[in-house]
Amino acid sequence: MNINEFALINKFRKAIKLDSSVVRGSGDDCAVIKFDRHRYLLFTCDMIVQGVDFTAQTKPELIGRKALAVSLSDIAACGGIPRYATVALGAPRNIGLKKINSIAKGVFSLAKKYKVNIVGGDLSRADKIVLDVSMLGVVEKKSLVLRSNAQVGDIIFVSGALGGSRLGKHLTFTPRIKEARYLVKNFKINSMIDISDGLVLDLSHILEESSVGAVLYENRIPIAKLAAGLKNALSEGEDFELLFTLSPGEAKRLIRNNPFHFKPIGEIVLKKYGLRLIDKKAQEKNIIPEGFQHFFKVK
Amino acid sequence: MNINEFALINKFRKAIKLDSSVVRGSGDDCAVIKFDRHRYLLFTCDMIVQGVDFTAQTKPELIGRKALAVSLSDIAACGGIPRYATVALGAPRNIGLKKINSIAKGVFSLAKKYKVNIVGGDLSRADKIVLDVSMLGVVEKKSLVLRSNAQVGDIIFVSGALGGSRLGKHLTFTPRIKEARYLVKNFKINSMIDISDGLVLDLSHILEESSVGAVLYENRIPIAKLAAGLKNALSEGEDFELLFTLSPGEAKRLIRNNPFHFKPIGEIVLKKYGLRLIDKKAQEKNIIPEGFQHFFKVK
Repeated sequence: MNINEFALINKFRKAIKLDSSVVRGSGDDCAVIKFDRHRYLLFTCDMIVQGVDFTAQTKPELIGRKALAVSLSDIAACGGIPRYATVALGAPRNIGLKKINSIAKGVFSLAKKYKVNIVGGDLSRADKIVLDVSMLGVVEKKSLVLRSNAQVGDIIFVSGALGGSRLGKHLTFTPRIKEARYLVKNFKINSMIDISDGLVLDLSHILEESSVGAVLYENRIPIAKLAAGLKNALSEGEDFELLFTLSPGEAKRLIRNNPFHFKPIGEIVLKKYGLRLIDKKAQEKNIIPEGFQHFFKVK
Repeated sequence: MNINEFALINKFRKAIKLDSSVVRGSGDDCAVIKFDRHRYLLFTCDMIVQGVDFTAQTKPELIGRKALAVSLSDIAACGGIPRYATVALGAPRNIGLKKINSIAKGVFSLAKKYKVNIVGGDLSRADKIVLDVSMLGVVEKKSLVLRSNAQVGDIIFVSGALGGSRLGKHLTFTPRIKEARYLVKNFKINSMIDISDGLVLDLSHILEESSVGAVLYENRIPIAKLAAGLKNALSEGEDFELLFTLSPGEAKRLIRNNPFHFKPIGEIVLKKYGLRLIDKKAQEKNIIPEGFQHFFKVK
């Protein structure tokens, strides 16, 4: 998305009236809706489109897989358990049943793995393949994590290496459901998001929603083997790793009980300090991806 | 959809394993999920695509309106109250903010009218405009209506005139929420569907799911002024009227208390009689749209 689109979406968000059953509307990884005494419903939708999120050459099974995986990642980012999904497929008239079959296989095999009930579908004509998955999940009220509660002093963690995802991982990544559930069941996680737009941009969403700033330590950022370097790891996106913050005390506990090898990469600071990167020589550096300056208050 | 696609979807439907919280998976207007002691959740998704469901010339506001209206119609068909929706928009890079704005306006004004909370959205690149709406509704357990409970002897009704919808009504129709709620609150409705694929084809879904047959009376079918004739009224689709069945006793009560002018058009008969049309001279006639024979067991 470009800056205008973010601005437009923000405009709509502010204009939308929601009733009191909506705990959180758009603007987070999932919408949060009152469900029962102990739990909330999570509701998210993601569209993937040929030529943007995959190519004409992508294996059909991986297309179906990705469509579901992206929504699973959103449910994970809120600390939830995925439960139900609907799948809408738009496809050219000449696509052939074999290819539809393979796309569906990709959806269903991942659904089975995560115990997601595929409860509906819709098949339409479209010039190119487009897949839209809507997913419902549940989360215990006390386990819900949003983007909006990062606290000054929090330690920032990621769940895995970043960058280079578009070379393949974006089609085969493991949605971090298990990791997220481990976190919310055992620690007080203050804020969390999944990295879809890139570390810097997704961190900036947490900063915006929580009214805080952040410092990232360059030498702490886990860079994927396939990444083209630090800048790529900071901004490429489609990593679908978890980015989360918790208090220094909780962070210490996590480091001692860290079966998933979560990596600390920085700290939450006062909003007035914006978003800064500290390089290996302990110098402040601004490696802000082009086009995204709008979102950062760089000192 | 063509016959192969129906067959494919049926194949998937049968292969899908659902847990016990799913009252009804795909194969109805909405999925039905356990919610609380008195109510079910309804979950539906519909994709509309430029060149199929609207054209490049369609007013953007009507595109947004239709996307939401189609899902509202699905909730109505199950007797429910619409509550939450997410909207995913795929649009060309050069679409312009003004057009996105107008599409959104179409979504939001209809959402406001039906008190639907728009709780999420997703914006993607696509060559042509594609909109996918997912909607959640609720329905009292005793008010839920599916396609699968039509009884031999039931009278078949429609909520309005049929045919000619593609000349305009498909963009401006009123989702029959009010009408459906009147029905389920005051009568025992045995089966219901909204007419999206055409009277004959949607009735055939009820017949299939309920294992029954039907007789339609040609002179009872309300034909829209813009319809090209009976055949058009029987098969064009996109009418988004309600098609429902109830016992003769309930039908009599409905005729006496009929503020919405529901029209009786036929009867449910034994499965072995298939689907027949009785013309004005009381002769049996088979006016089955081409391509759809597969679904009917015409005697």
